[in-house]
Amino acid sequence: MTVEEFLQEKSQCVEAALENCLSNYSNAPPGLIAAMKYSLLAGGKRLRPALALGACELLGGKQSDAMPAACALEMVHTYSLIHDDLPCMDDDDLRRGKPTSHKKFNEATAILAGDGLLTMAFYELARTGRADAVAVLAEASGVGGMAGGQYHDMLSLGETCDIKDLQRIHACKTGALITASLHLGAIFADASSEQINALTGYGRHLGMLFQITDDILDVTGVSQLLGKSVGKDEQSSKATYPAVVGIEQARILAQEAAEAACDELSLFGEAAEIFHVLTRYILKRNR
Amino acid sequence: MTVEEFLQEKSQCVEAALENCLSNYSNAPPGLIAAMKYSLLAGGKRLRPALALGACELLGGKQSDAMPAACALEMVHTYSLIHDDLPCMDDDDLRRGKPTSHKKFNEATAILAGDGLLTMAFYELARTGRADAVAVLAEASGVGGMAGGQYHDMLSLGETCDIKDLQRIHACKTGALITASLHLGAIFADASSEQINALTGYGRHLGMLFQITDDILDVTGVSQLLGKSVGKDEQSSKATYPAVVGIEQARILAQEAAEAACDELSLFGEAAEIFHVLTRYILKRNR
Repeated sequence: MTVEEFLQEKSQCVEAALENCLSNYSNAPPGLIAAMKYSLLAGGKRLRPALALGACELLGGKQSDAMPAACALEMVHTYSLIHDDLPCMDDDDLRRGKPTSHKKFNEATAILAGDGLLTMAFYELARTGRADAVAVLAEASGVGGMAGGQYHDMLSLGETCDIKDLQRIHACKTGALITASLHLGAIFADASSEQINALTGYGRHLGMLFQITDDILDVTGVSQLLGKSVGKDEQSSKATYPAVVGIEQARILAQEAAEAACDELSLFGEAAEIFHVLTRYILKRNR
Repeated sequence: MTVEEFLQEKSQCVEAALENCLSNYSNAPPGLIAAMKYSLLAGGKRLRPALALGACELLGGKQSDAMPAACALEMVHTYSLIHDDLPCMDDDDLRRGKPTSHKKFNEATAILAGDGLLTMAFYELARTGRADAVAVLAEASGVGGMAGGQYHDMLSLGETCDIKDLQRIHACKTGALITASLHLGAIFADASSEQINALTGYGRHLGMLFQITDDILDVTGVSQLLGKSVGKDEQSSKATYPAVVGIEQARILAQEAAEAACDELSLFGEAAEIFHVLTRYILKRNR
């Protein structure tokens, strides 16, 4: 299976599950559900759900067992994008090739759509009966993870940042949820702690790889392919890998992160082939 | 025990638990924790935690078993206040006698402090191992509950609203979380479904009572006692009970809600005395 086939298969399943999930909230205001759906079903790579479903399958679990976690991860990711795009945060007009939520609707609706998605993620995950899974997702999304990373990132605007600061910010902002994706997939395959350690180790390096390539694409990328504005980071004097270490060194760090990620997969041998391919794909990505 | 003693005892325990809880997040940005703490420990009646702890004790449970739920409820309530006060929502400058979060810090910090509190609530609750409790809190806080109610409330600005619309908005916006407080207290006392039904029935009427008296106080109240601006609802042409049915009829509805609430407690006999007293206290409240 090529990585494109893998990602496409996973995103089709997840999008169907997300659509089905939203349709169960008939007691909610239709306008709010529409705003949530607008951002949740706006495309995107569905990387986090794919990691969760792939990890579950790697360990012999059923894809359907990890589907609530896959949906919850995409809801949390989408909520974070909606809130990060707000005027008082990154002030972005374009996301996945479409107007951002506050542009399409208004700020109040965007804030509530994000709040609604975050809360729905925990509801859907809690309904599996696995409180341990809820704790993993909440820890990764919270102040010691993604939300804390976004706060650090905001604080870093215009500040001098070294490579350690940058790694700390991104380990939280991007790394925590990517790591949690693999962790959740493993939980729903009833993984051993050795398997969980290997997959979360892989996730940490993959998260760093993903962020470095994201930063590089903000400098070198094509807005149309990315579906978002490029050059935003430099304009806003954000701390990024190219800004802190230069673009050549950032490419070397990406290569190293990709290798370190693959090293963590040795426990699984050839069964983890798709994760090796996925890692190279992210290293070479142009969107 | 007087209701003041009951509320004071519960708030002291909950505030100590909240403070202790925040101190465990040493891996989070201190500035973000400080913003969360500012709003979380700004006083307030702690009604939702008191209901949860009281319900647990009423059914023979230990207060400490319901404490994570009590903290989670106050975190969710505080997150909702922070986001509702934002300029693009209710645009309030004063809350519990202090500047609102976005006034004290800035909008981005206020949004992240709210996001952080909501996520922390689910983390703390998930750590009890009770996924059913997480589901109850998430359902009450989400698009079919509190977040949906806030969206409806926003939409209703300047619109003509009848008493049915108003009851629907407030059943979500205020009622759902108050009902969940009693439900969660019951869960941590391993309640029967009959006991849960009685307590959630009580919660629905109490929530309505609370909202009606809140609306009345916005017209008749003293800003200093309330710790927030008064007359805001009328200024912003919000749908309120006094606006829709007049102040005298609102007082009658409050009385009826109080009686209906107390009727639901018959299952518990005299053991539920504190809830009867609390209901009368809310009916007569001036803050």
